[in-house]
Amino acid sequence: MSRTQQLATWVSALRYNDLPRPVVEKTKDFFLDWYACAVGGRRHPAVVAMSAFARDMGPAGSGKSEVLHDPAHKTSSAFAALVNGAASHVIELDDLHNSSVVHPATIVFPAALAVAQEVGADGKAFITACVAGYEASCRVGEFLGPSHYKKFHMTATAGVFGAAAAAAQLLRLDDRQTLSAFGTAGTQAAGLWQFLIDATHAKQVHTAKAGFEGIFAAYTARAGLLGTADVLEGVSGMAAAMVPGAPNAEALTRNLGAPASYAILHSSYKWHASCRHTHGSADGLLQIMQDHGLKADDIKSVVCYVYRAAIDVLGRTGDDEKEENLTTVHQSKFNMGFVLAVIAKYGRASVLDFTDEALQDPDLLDFQKRVRMEVDDKIEADFPAKWQARVEVTTTSGVTFSQFVEVAKGDPGRHLTRQEIEDKARCIAEYACITDLRAFEETFRRVWRLENETDLGGLACV
Amino acid sequence: MSRTQQLATWVSALRYNDLPRPVVEKTKDFFLDWYACAVGGRRHPAVVAMSAFARDMGPAGSGKSEVLHDPAHKTSSAFAALVNGAASHVIELDDLHNSSVVHPATIVFPAALAVAQEVGADGKAFITACVAGYEASCRVGEFLGPSHYKKFHMTATAGVFGAAAAAAQLLRLDDRQTLSAFGTAGTQAAGLWQFLIDATHAKQVHTAKAGFEGIFAAYTARAGLLGTADVLEGVSGMAAAMVPGAPNAEALTRNLGAPASYAILHSSYKWHASCRHTHGSADGLLQIMQDHGLKADDIKSVVCYVYRAAIDVLGRTGDDEKEENLTTVHQSKFNMGFVLAVIAKYGRASVLDFTDEALQDPDLLDFQKRVRMEVDDKIEADFPAKWQARVEVTTTSGVTFSQFVEVAKGDPGRHLTRQEIEDKARCIAEYACITDLRAFEETFRRVWRLENETDLGGLACV
Repeated sequence: MSRTQQLATWVSALRYNDLPRPVVEKTKDFFLDWYACAVGGRRHPAVVAMSAFARDMGPAGSGKSEVLHDPAHKTSSAFAALVNGAASHVIELDDLHNSSVVHPATIVFPAALAVAQEVGADGKAFITACVAGYEASCRVGEFLGPSHYKKFHMTATAGVFGAAAAAAQLLRLDDRQTLSAFGTAGTQAAGLWQFLIDATHAKQVHTAKAGFEGIFAAYTARAGLLGTADVLEGVSGMAAAMVPGAPNAEALTRNLGAPASYAILHSSYKWHASCRHTHGSADGLLQIMQDHGLKADDIKSVVCYVYRAAIDVLGRTGDDEKEENLTTVHQSKFNMGFVLAVIAKYGRASVLDFTDEALQDPDLLDFQKRVRMEVDDKIEADFPAKWQARVEVTTTSGVTFSQFVEVAKGDPGRHLTRQEIEDKARCIAEYACITDLRAFEETFRRVWRLENETDLGGLACV
Repeated sequence: MSRTQQLATWVSALRYNDLPRPVVEKTKDFFLDWYACAVGGRRHPAVVAMSAFARDMGPAGSGKSEVLHDPAHKTSSAFAALVNGAASHVIELDDLHNSSVVHPATIVFPAALAVAQEVGADGKAFITACVAGYEASCRVGEFLGPSHYKKFHMTATAGVFGAAAAAAQLLRLDDRQTLSAFGTAGTQAAGLWQFLIDATHAKQVHTAKAGFEGIFAAYTARAGLLGTADVLEGVSGMAAAMVPGAPNAEALTRNLGAPASYAILHSSYKWHASCRHTHGSADGLLQIMQDHGLKADDIKSVVCYVYRAAIDVLGRTGDDEKEENLTTVHQSKFNMGFVLAVIAKYGRASVLDFTDEALQDPDLLDFQKRVRMEVDDKIEADFPAKWQARVEVTTTSGVTFSQFVEVAKGDPGRHLTRQEIEDKARCIAEYACITDLRAFEETFRRVWRLENETDLGGLACV
């Protein structure tokens, strides 16, 4: 049996009663964290455009799956996953699985929720599907590895396996059909980084389409479409075409199903509303400022010692001069200098702090110039197993402070509490101008008892 | 202006009155050739599965776009393009643009027809959109080049630009929106060769999805979604991620719009029902057998001197021993030995000759073993500008004959006549068990006067 086949067989055989209790609880936590993100991104033009596409092409109004921010738009599962997947990756607050560099929630939950609503699955089946989706997407992400990540938007290219796995579970595909779904998912895997250059909307297209493709893969597998058996390791498969370095083959099956190995236990919440690669440095700066009572004006310069991938991604808004000229809110979340400027000024970097007005704020633009990044060899060697940072702050009075951050807030070991998850969700609801906060908060209560829910309907809010 | 921008601007500005008469006539020829292919593939399980997906997810029955082989299934443009795009790539008789190694018809026509039916476009608008689609897909294919083709199914990865261009024309997108559509198309480009290993259904998934994605790209661009501006040549674009060698940048814009340069003039019909890489050798064998009055039993061995890509593709059914054991009709069309065996036995290799029974025919299996391939340096040097072959036949009596084929039947310079196109279509209709041949043949008459048609409806047949 190939490793891909072993993974497909495991996904197909997984049952709710197999799941350790912490895995069930963590799935609920990440689902609520995702739900807020999906509602929070509703006004983004990419979401509006894909919602229009779903209305043009799908059964607008007459489907069983909900577009979460638009109760009137009930559509088929593929289109609901498309729109919710686009929306949940807008505000940059969805989770990240560090060792794979995959954002699993934004692909797995939209697909699982849409299919669960379409087939009338209960909470237990939904939780099981989500666990399977996390497992598949994160393991494929680890398999594809850093050399793939340099070229491709991993969340999409690995994520499509997560959507396929979740949909396959809910459709009760057997092992052979699930393997077919993986084959079809893999041969459609796509997503280039070029959007970082001009701050365009492909990021949301990638998450939207990965959910759609995963559902396509599972539904067509059920209907008899044969996907190739060894799409990952085969001689003309993903690794051969899309992994310039060596794939991590063992990652596909190592400790599969071991209680402490479930991927969903190892995902990270995003506490700051910026690119995940800024979080270690943001925590470090905040710690130094708190420990030494510094204000933004006390700081002359900041050096962030990071792994190379951070510079690869965060440096991609253009050349040095252009980097100073941020033109969109999205770009500003991917600019280390700007993110640390927000941290220095507000003591946080929440979704309410990145605005068009902020792009013009002279305090922030001035602080931005004081920040630079350097690769640290030790930190680089530990990446992506650890997303560490060391921050050196030199004050206007000439003193230098240093703070090493091994684990950023939100990471495994520093996961958010349910109270913090709810607080973060309420903050997002405020940002998204949710008018019916009671309906929104009712979802909190449903999610905390999700394994007892008989269906997943009625989650849309306005 | 980047080259991608120049191409988008040209696509957006193209008008029917700009088109040279031969371009209009050739578009009609290739459209009819494609139409027969789309009807001919209707029973393939991948088509059945994707049709089921379209019914599950789309407005089954209430759309404006036709699934050509199923008059009752009128759906939205994206799903009609999906199913027709899958169907038209099943019987391996759709056209090929040699210098790009793209099969443009199977992506461009499904997308253009589906959108034309959805927006109520007339024949002239449809023809213009198809010309734009051929131009975009073939030029992008030439841009991506042979090193990309080794890793990716070019018809899909370049084809998505053709679907996007055709849809953009019919939606009357401006140059900026068309560029956005290209950006969205490119960041979704996908398609691995792994399906050749186990004869699975990804080939049809690729053509189906490329049409779907192109429509997605154009409709969402109209709705405000921003695609990245330089998706082909940008530092994190397609060339950077998916072209291991050097892309052919000039191909994107060289002689754009020059009367003799239109891509559709340079596409090739497929006369034999097998992989295009077998055609030169098939013609050569046929010529030798006709010239010297040979029968299959007179032939002891056949050596086909070809370009390397032919061996790369045709050798991919497995290792040497397994190659003898063809298990599917699809595999048999990609096996040089088997294809030449069919030619030797029947004097042709039509869609009626590749069957499950043929796979068990001892005559064919015996002849198959007498065929081998070798790379010819001169032929390799001319590829992909020329798809040449030289065939050496040694008879049982020890005489050796050689035939060089510079231009295969169906290629530019040896294009099919309208009579031959109709004959080929009738043969496909027989294969597909079309019951209402009068409706089928009425389409011939509509296509030959396509520029005078006020709409594209009513082309489905049973």
